[in-house]
Amino acid sequence: MKALYYEKKLAFRDDLPKPTPKNGDALVKVVKSGICRTDIEIAKGYMDFTGIPGHEFVGIVEDASDKSLIGDRVVGEINCGCGECYDCKSGNHHHCNSRTVLGIKNHNGSFAEYLTIPEKNLHHIPEALSDDEAMFVEPLAAAFRVAEQVVVMNTDSLVLGDGKLGILIAQIIAFLKGDVTLCGKYPEKMKLVDGKNIATLTLDELKEKRLYSIVVDATGNPDGIKTALAHTKPRGTLILKTTIAANEPPQIGPAELNHIVINEITVKGSRCGPFVHAITLLEQQLIAVTPLIEKTFPLEKGLEAFEAAKRPGALKILIGN
Amino acid sequence: MKALYYEKKLAFRDDLPKPTPKNGDALVKVVKSGICRTDIEIAKGYMDFTGIPGHEFVGIVEDASDKSLIGDRVVGEINCGCGECYDCKSGNHHHCNSRTVLGIKNHNGSFAEYLTIPEKNLHHIPEALSDDEAMFVEPLAAAFRVAEQVVVMNTDSLVLGDGKLGILIAQIIAFLKGDVTLCGKYPEKMKLVDGKNIATLTLDELKEKRLYSIVVDATGNPDGIKTALAHTKPRGTLILKTTIAANEPPQIGPAELNHIVINEITVKGSRCGPFVHAITLLEQQLIAVTPLIEKTFPLEKGLEAFEAAKRPGALKILIGN
Repeated sequence: MKALYYEKKLAFRDDLPKPTPKNGDALVKVVKSGICRTDIEIAKGYMDFTGIPGHEFVGIVEDASDKSLIGDRVVGEINCGCGECYDCKSGNHHHCNSRTVLGIKNHNGSFAEYLTIPEKNLHHIPEALSDDEAMFVEPLAAAFRVAEQVVVMNTDSLVLGDGKLGILIAQIIAFLKGDVTLCGKYPEKMKLVDGKNIATLTLDELKEKRLYSIVVDATGNPDGIKTALAHTKPRGTLILKTTIAANEPPQIGPAELNHIVINEITVKGSRCGPFVHAITLLEQQLIAVTPLIEKTFPLEKGLEAFEAAKRPGALKILIGN
Repeated sequence: MKALYYEKKLAFRDDLPKPTPKNGDALVKVVKSGICRTDIEIAKGYMDFTGIPGHEFVGIVEDASDKSLIGDRVVGEINCGCGECYDCKSGNHHHCNSRTVLGIKNHNGSFAEYLTIPEKNLHHIPEALSDDEAMFVEPLAAAFRVAEQVVVMNTDSLVLGDGKLGILIAQIIAFLKGDVTLCGKYPEKMKLVDGKNIATLTLDELKEKRLYSIVVDATGNPDGIKTALAHTKPRGTLILKTTIAANEPPQIGPAELNHIVINEITVKGSRCGPFVHAITLLEQQLIAVTPLIEKTFPLEKGLEAFEAAKRPGALKILIGN
């Protein structure tokens, strides 16, 4: 089958075998797949991944142990737990120590014609959602994770980064009645949240030293954490969404460490979130997602798609089969 | 009056004026004062402080606006808020943006014959407590702060650092029914917690990769945070007690940052705690503190006292008047 394959560098290949699902796994024919910041990091060597990247997808179940799933249009949670350990048995498979992660860790991902994934990871996509909307279930769930980690209602918060994730997080906070400011580099991108009760600022405008109770670093840059800390109130919370490649040291020095201790800042890492909430919000059209799509490339042009996604200020780039 | 004075370097001086209390301040004759890790950092340039360091003290009120305080034996909270701002008015003077901090920030401290401090910062020391025991109110309150920030009961926790603060934190966690392990460099120091329901490990023994739900970095070293993160469970909490001087970069690289994000670690800075709780615990003899005292030096030998306190593995060094 055709796929993008990463082994020291990313390449398009058409000689890969169609995968065979193990017991309990589904074989999914990928309809569309989105390029996220993590994929770009993986293509720089993050996680030492070898294989097919991609973890945001919508597809059709072609085969499964549970035959009732066949033909269903689905998205999938990316963490594939062992199913046996204490974490998995207590519903915390996101953090199973021996998990594989779709397109990220020991599990081929979605920039391909087909993928396999545990059936229990799948979520049905209602008719009302288009494929393009369904593409945002995974990132919207990751955005919603912030609101599981800190109470945003009636609290002042700053979202740093006007990428796709930052724009989704700002919308989630505004939807949950938080007082939210989105800060980014591209005024024209931040226009996408007009009318959503989200204040916007450019990085230059942020230099004025205003502090926030909640700050979310969704910059995707190693220097994001430093800016984020500089704008976090004493006893405030900084939510970190940014992961970086090994050759990009984060800007944390003695000043940042002492600021965390002296001002008793809480720093929380934040990763995957609740798919069910994301699907509900999308079905009820409460979060605007399709304006975030820039372009869809065919799988054969996947390398071009990655170049487009890497461009500073790029919106969501999709790969469609 | 006599005092230790820091201006680019620490010196003993006998030519300083006896301070005059402002309205609302008390004049306190210092009886004893303790050297803590922060004082050693200040003597290396931390906080760019100039003046008399020292913030752990017990003393006798010699003058005050409230005359009923005169003659009282007291300890004092170190953060002196402005009393006017939102933080101060909501009981959060620890984080007042224009606060002074005894012996740390724009406020002369306790390595002196006399100090001044807001009357509202003072706490009466009951007869039952010796001066030596009273010396531990401030550090024990700081240790108790950990239990205000995270629920320790029935939870596995690791305290890194067998300095005074680490030993106090381990005792607080054990007292509050936490399952606690103290890890340090000095088996003979860790013997001080024998019979307290605290497991002990040396750093070598820790290398075996066991993870904990709560880890406290009380090492006082810039590399403490790296070791602490390496032993924090996914979704666990790391409490940071370590502040460091500007020339000691903490060991946080891409691996540590990604670990925080991927494993959704919560990192919490931790500083001052509740004096009232500390006094109660000491009065009821629930926490062993006097075995932590190594030696008391007269103020005139303050520089020797600092040298003794800097020695690796030193116990609590006091300066007595």
